[in-house]
Amino acid sequence: MTAPELNKRMANAIRALAMDSVEKAKSGHPGMPMGMADVATVLFTRFLKFDVANPHWPDRDRFVLSAGHGSMLLYSVLHLLGSTALTIGQLKQFRQLHSLTPGHPENFVTPGIETTTGPLGQGLAMSVGFALAERMLNAEYGDDIVDHYTYVIAGDGCLMEGVSHEAIDLAGHLKLNKLIVLFDDNGITIDGHTDLSTSVDQVARFQASGWHAERVDGFDQEEVAAAIERARKSDKPSLIACKTIIGYGAPTKADSHASHGAALGAAEIAGAREKLGWPYPPFEIPDDVATGWLEAGKGWVAEREAWEARLAAKDHDLKAEFKRRFDKILPGNFEAAVEAYKRGLSDTKPKVATRKSSEMALDMLTAIVPELVGGSADLTGSNLTRGKPQKPLTPEDYSGRYIHYGIREFGMSAAMNGISLHGGFLPYGGTFLVFSDYARPAIRLSALMGTHVVYVMTHDSIGLGEDGPTHQPVEHLAALRAIPHLLVFRPADAVEVAECWQIALETTNHPSLLALSRQNLPVLRTAHSVENKSARGAYLIAGPADAEVTLFATGSEVEIAVNAMAKIEAAGRTARVVSVPSFELFAAQDAAYRAEVIGTAKVKVAIEAAIRQGWDTFIGHDGIFIGMTGFGASAPIEALYPYFGITADAAADAALARLTSNV
Amino acid sequence: MTAPELNKRMANAIRALAMDSVEKAKSGHPGMPMGMADVATVLFTRFLKFDVANPHWPDRDRFVLSAGHGSMLLYSVLHLLGSTALTIGQLKQFRQLHSLTPGHPENFVTPGIETTTGPLGQGLAMSVGFALAERMLNAEYGDDIVDHYTYVIAGDGCLMEGVSHEAIDLAGHLKLNKLIVLFDDNGITIDGHTDLSTSVDQVARFQASGWHAERVDGFDQEEVAAAIERARKSDKPSLIACKTIIGYGAPTKADSHASHGAALGAAEIAGAREKLGWPYPPFEIPDDVATGWLEAGKGWVAEREAWEARLAAKDHDLKAEFKRRFDKILPGNFEAAVEAYKRGLSDTKPKVATRKSSEMALDMLTAIVPELVGGSADLTGSNLTRGKPQKPLTPEDYSGRYIHYGIREFGMSAAMNGISLHGGFLPYGGTFLVFSDYARPAIRLSALMGTHVVYVMTHDSIGLGEDGPTHQPVEHLAALRAIPHLLVFRPADAVEVAECWQIALETTNHPSLLALSRQNLPVLRTAHSVENKSARGAYLIAGPADAEVTLFATGSEVEIAVNAMAKIEAAGRTARVVSVPSFELFAAQDAAYRAEVIGTAKVKVAIEAAIRQGWDTFIGHDGIFIGMTGFGASAPIEALYPYFGITADAAADAALARLTSNV
Repeated sequence: MTAPELNKRMANAIRALAMDSVEKAKSGHPGMPMGMADVATVLFTRFLKFDVANPHWPDRDRFVLSAGHGSMLLYSVLHLLGSTALTIGQLKQFRQLHSLTPGHPENFVTPGIETTTGPLGQGLAMSVGFALAERMLNAEYGDDIVDHYTYVIAGDGCLMEGVSHEAIDLAGHLKLNKLIVLFDDNGITIDGHTDLSTSVDQVARFQASGWHAERVDGFDQEEVAAAIERARKSDKPSLIACKTIIGYGAPTKADSHASHGAALGAAEIAGAREKLGWPYPPFEIPDDVATGWLEAGKGWVAEREAWEARLAAKDHDLKAEFKRRFDKILPGNFEAAVEAYKRGLSDTKPKVATRKSSEMALDMLTAIVPELVGGSADLTGSNLTRGKPQKPLTPEDYSGRYIHYGIREFGMSAAMNGISLHGGFLPYGGTFLVFSDYARPAIRLSALMGTHVVYVMTHDSIGLGEDGPTHQPVEHLAALRAIPHLLVFRPADAVEVAECWQIALETTNHPSLLALSRQNLPVLRTAHSVENKSARGAYLIAGPADAEVTLFATGSEVEIAVNAMAKIEAAGRTARVVSVPSFELFAAQDAAYRAEVIGTAKVKVAIEAAIRQGWDTFIGHDGIFIGMTGFGASAPIEALYPYFGITADAAADAALARLTSNV
Repeated sequence: MTAPELNKRMANAIRALAMDSVEKAKSGHPGMPMGMADVATVLFTRFLKFDVANPHWPDRDRFVLSAGHGSMLLYSVLHLLGSTALTIGQLKQFRQLHSLTPGHPENFVTPGIETTTGPLGQGLAMSVGFALAERMLNAEYGDDIVDHYTYVIAGDGCLMEGVSHEAIDLAGHLKLNKLIVLFDDNGITIDGHTDLSTSVDQVARFQASGWHAERVDGFDQEEVAAAIERARKSDKPSLIACKTIIGYGAPTKADSHASHGAALGAAEIAGAREKLGWPYPPFEIPDDVATGWLEAGKGWVAEREAWEARLAAKDHDLKAEFKRRFDKILPGNFEAAVEAYKRGLSDTKPKVATRKSSEMALDMLTAIVPELVGGSADLTGSNLTRGKPQKPLTPEDYSGRYIHYGIREFGMSAAMNGISLHGGFLPYGGTFLVFSDYARPAIRLSALMGTHVVYVMTHDSIGLGEDGPTHQPVEHLAALRAIPHLLVFRPADAVEVAECWQIALETTNHPSLLALSRQNLPVLRTAHSVENKSARGAYLIAGPADAEVTLFATGSEVEIAVNAMAKIEAAGRTARVVSVPSFELFAAQDAAYRAEVIGTAKVKVAIEAAIRQGWDTFIGHDGIFIGMTGFGASAPIEALYPYFGITADAAADAALARLTSNV
């Protein structure tokens, strides 16, 4: 047996495990693993710096299966490399409840999986974040501590999705030369051959975006290896288009979408075994192949140990800081600094937009939390996301901690996920709240994976004024609150902004999103409180506990609620105001606190310059809602709030009328 | 005065009106109109086939201002061409409430505006739909009735957004040679110079996607004209990258993002007037320039009249059909056909997935409604969106009425908007419900504009099973119901599917979205009703009106509710089931009907395999909700529903326990 022959057999082991697991589950995607088995064998046995027994080694190469439906490729490889988690029993439980082998790779389920993929294009887009994080850390810690590659397997679907353009344009611009994408160029999509829907020349396309790109035969392991060697030496990110055949080996379903997303069936599998020269029973790996893979799995142990020795030799502070950041622990002075900052706000009472007080908070935070990496989708001057200490990151200088993401909300958000998953950084990025729609697929993945990222979404209502309904969020707060495990904040003043930033940075297992105003807002929290009141989600901000009217509001509408309270009091009745910076955190409070905050006022009013959906939880089905029922309009803010009836007068009048009608 | 000199002055009129209107509004974007004024002058005075007095002429060239923030370019041009709507008074009311000149172009506000733009990239993506509709109609009606171009002005932002890739890949593949994009290549974005965030070679990029692409000097009108001539002759879609200077003429702010999105200020405007040789007061156009533009505005009257004569000479049926389709009137036999089809379903009771009964409905509908244009984002065999009579559209044959949109949910949805806006077609397209997130920015524009499109979203819950949480919608029904003016349907059986399709086709001023199951569901509407019950949004589908328990449910969970009803009855209590195919249509019913449907049962239960948000409207804050509280999991459907507690037993037990506790 020569080495090349063993290599081929090692690739066939992936094919067999993929066929057999999908067949047992009667569900899954055998075609991609069978097509890309040779490429994966080359990558995982010769290049990928990875110790399967220590999957969290910070300087490992990262591997992203952007074509996530081919999850059996990754599970097979991890099993073959010797993962103690991914036993053969787990492969037999593919796609079953509570298994470590779900339909698509889930990093929060399976050891050794770097990120959750399946929604096409996002793996590729996240890989830009991984590669960027590597370069940024390298700029701080040097080659002997951080120096690794990010490899991606992507399919036609990934490259057809729009986010791929945002990703490759950004990666090419930033010269992320340690990013290497292996394109499964099999010419097949679910509907049939790719010529049904695309004619793009991918190599030319990537070259136009500043990538090194070439084509290889995806079944010629030496050719693939040589291309990876060239890619590793390039000063640009690299695309290697690997010409493959989907379902390679299947006698009738190869080169057809029939092998993409369903079990092949017993006859087809028997035929494939024959064709591949693989006479072994299902889930059985012959010794030579098993040994070959296990040896590859141990190939980087010495390298990892050498890395650990290099780190151990560094001075104490550097080591502690490196560990702190990978452990997601904030600097020791964080809490005190936030409290001092908050106290200053209650003293000075700056009447500024919450986007501005967010910038003020960031000036402070970026000075003490070096892992913060800011950015904006080309709205820096509007989102006010750049902290004073931050200089822009450029292709020539990766020590910058502010990223001009370009007009790429989705690409930015996916890159943020990648940066967070890489470790060592806490990314945040800005755009207009209305364009959270563009980023939504990545925001959902943030929530599903629990990445520690912060979305800074400004211009959060009709309050943005003249740009009109295309730019005015109306349904977005409800739509974002709908996403499980996402913390949505809409702070009312500079103090709440500081508190929400504090929660966002301290909550390491959930993403956060701040909805911030364009317009100026007074400080309502004029008495300093050590307690982070926003952490309760909702709290009494003004008025007596036993008032006849409760006014619930968020963000810019809390001021309106406070003014409405004054009008109600002027009419001889009583009112209280509850600020609701976060629905999710309020829902997490105990029943007694929630009951106290909701209160027993006869009349309940909610004020939010957005749709009602979700507010019945606070005010009930018969509560009064002062907000939007449709899209906004283009006009100055001074005209819009009265036009849509979102005023203190309207709220007070409605509450008083209800009080009277109840009497 | 030679012609070229007058042409330059005509361009300066755009610059002056843009500066002056933005200055008066103290808000807006002068930079783009000032940079692209020469290009626009060439396009609108020499090429664009458009009769400003008859903006709905079906064979007019379409113009899409993808860089929608430059709205003053379009308002200025329409005014100068002689629009009676866009008076100088309207330009002075730029960005004011109720004006015809909102911040971004809104086709539902302003005569002569083809589509709403501003969310970047979408104008370009919609233009693919416009150009495709033209080719499709041309294939049906011939060159003498339909033969026109679609022109686009796009900026750096449009070309950085990911959807641009989906659009140009699809347009290049489909060889949409009558699509011509003029790229405002000014090298500036909001954050500064484009070299902050992009290095792509746009000409090479477009060429890689099968476009004719070239570069010109955007201030050389003859060069621009020659390039447009070449583009018109190309057998590919064309990109003309026009090198321009943002804010051209402004003495200090030109070539800087300072001229992008704010009024220039009096001094800068005075300087620009001097630099441009434009001594006239604000909003004043000298006679020679006004006359030049007005003559251009009349340039196509003869052409339009000739077109009308050609149409008039056609036979009666063709004319009537052409008019019917542009008037969005369904064929005369539509209603009867749907009723007969519904009757058949109640008789034969097919137990199929609602995605399958949607396909059955489409087999029928596509045979009688020729304007239906189907498609899928590469999930045809899963979405079941192709009607039997439909053959695929290809670059060689535009008579196909089924479009393989590729893995491009956003691009598909934007193209559907463009097809609808063009007129003559009623587009629908499919993907998985979870990937409505990818399409969301276009769905929002559908709702804002009121385009007549139908989104077919299958695999609408954890019921899709093994693909796992990345593919299982949980928050999507709530998030879509949050979008104003979008009709979201979740039909429970084949009969409701037929009814929802009927409503979707009959509702011409709102987009519709169907959420359909992967799993089989029994026919519950076994007694035929002539009335379209789904049109009420919610209705009593089973049980007595005065029951002790009301079970509200949608889609696949209505069967569960019916089974829960039986269990409650078996326990000696009474229950009724309300099917809720559409929240929006139910909210539009009168109060009496709503009160009757909601009913007065002691115990209210809602069952939906999704989050609770929005359901309190039906069941109240203290109602019982059987559904999801977080993300799903990868497992067979048979395991998932019990695991998440969404079963008839769980619903019945909870209802009975509440009944008992209440007694």
